[in-house]
Amino acid sequence: MATYRLDLAYDGSRFGGWAVQPGRRTVQGELEAALARVLGEPVALRVAGRTDAGVHAIAQVASFVTERPVSAALGRALNALTGPDLAVWEVAAAPGFDARRDARSRRYRYRVEVARPPSPFERRRALSRPGPLDREALAACAAMLPGTHDFTAFTPTETEHVRFERDILEAGWRQEGERIIAFEVEADAFMRNMVRVLVGTMLEVGAGRRGREDFRRLLGGAPRAQAGETAPPHGLYLTAVVY
Amino acid sequence: MATYRLDLAYDGSRFGGWAVQPGRRTVQGELEAALARVLGEPVALRVAGRTDAGVHAIAQVASFVTERPVSAALGRALNALTGPDLAVWEVAAAPGFDARRDARSRRYRYRVEVARPPSPFERRRALSRPGPLDREALAACAAMLPGTHDFTAFTPTETEHVRFERDILEAGWRQEGERIIAFEVEADAFMRNMVRVLVGTMLEVGAGRRGREDFRRLLGGAPRAQAGETAPPHGLYLTAVVY
Repeated sequence: MATYRLDLAYDGSRFGGWAVQPGRRTVQGELEAALARVLGEPVALRVAGRTDAGVHAIAQVASFVTERPVSAALGRALNALTGPDLAVWEVAAAPGFDARRDARSRRYRYRVEVARPPSPFERRRALSRPGPLDREALAACAAMLPGTHDFTAFTPTETEHVRFERDILEAGWRQEGERIIAFEVEADAFMRNMVRVLVGTMLEVGAGRRGREDFRRLLGGAPRAQAGETAPPHGLYLTAVVY
Repeated sequence: MATYRLDLAYDGSRFGGWAVQPGRRTVQGELEAALARVLGEPVALRVAGRTDAGVHAIAQVASFVTERPVSAALGRALNALTGPDLAVWEVAAAPGFDARRDARSRRYRYRVEVARPPSPFERRRALSRPGPLDREALAACAAMLPGTHDFTAFTPTETEHVRFERDILEAGWRQEGERIIAFEVEADAFMRNMVRVLVGTMLEVGAGRRGREDFRRLLGGAPRAQAGETAPPHGLYLTAVVY
């Protein structure tokens, strides 16, 4: 029995997310099928960040255990068997490693294109949100995030989560070129849709449709209906996993 | 009669190039149809850089003449009528302006992804060309370019061009992040495929399959067959037009 670590990236546009679902093309499904074909046995992947349909990953990490011999060319074989919207950067032996359990934190980036009209090159890469946005209000919201909060308001009501507190290590908005602003956030772990609802709610504050103090109140725990819209998936990127 | 200048961008992936061709979706065709619909009369566009199928433009310039009244909202109307892979940045009144005749120079960029495996995010944005490349040889080739040369070897034999000399104002390779190298070139004008054949030929020098002196010799005029392959269109961007 040997354990391996996979470092990978994907453009989420044409995937139904990470997790295997019947009848949909998923990252886990495509990778597990390729691994099974190369190794000649079924392989179960563990993953650091279960991304939703349409969400991208620049630096996802997964792990698996196998009894079969693994050649140094496994990464290349996987890249040959999977679509061009998925890249395995590296495969490495990693005794005892569990991509999900061992992750100390995850980083996500959400990109918002604020200039009009939307650039043809950002079409599936950023949310187009032209119009006035109070950058200072966005910064003030992000500054409230570091620390431990109850994020019940920022994940769907129907949920498998049992604990709703998460520990945000870092959060902020930064300018990326002339047309894009990006929200960067690092936490021990994220609940389903959490970054997207945070962004959707902050954009309402930035547009003046919601007060900063309301955003602060939501961080103390509140029903989902009190937070803002779920920002669409194509602006979201898993950018790093820290071990 | 009033003349207007259009500044625009497009992702070339799903266009059969700039120029109208029967049965193909082209940038000119889509824009002229949108203009005719808004203005209520046929409109003929003049353009600074006639890009080929699959080639991108970040800053293309076109012009047209009309007798119809043009509202300040024309740009927005055009963006609403054209696909999301085409963006009109600006429409401005420009008395006497001719996008093609008045252009003093054009700038192009060709992006080559040298890291392996290809990134999912560069799939239609850069040529994937992993493997050893002599960067110093690439730089030496680019350094031969400024000045006036006979580019007969760098355009198809079947041609509408009548003059094969072009004046290169600037040329060079630069690193763009960790995975990409980009060739940047500015000239008074370019012949069909010229940047792509230059890149294809320089990559042969960089791979050691062709000598630098051979590249220099080709700049004095030679049959097309003596130059290298035409690099694929999806790495090429029209990045600026100088007036």
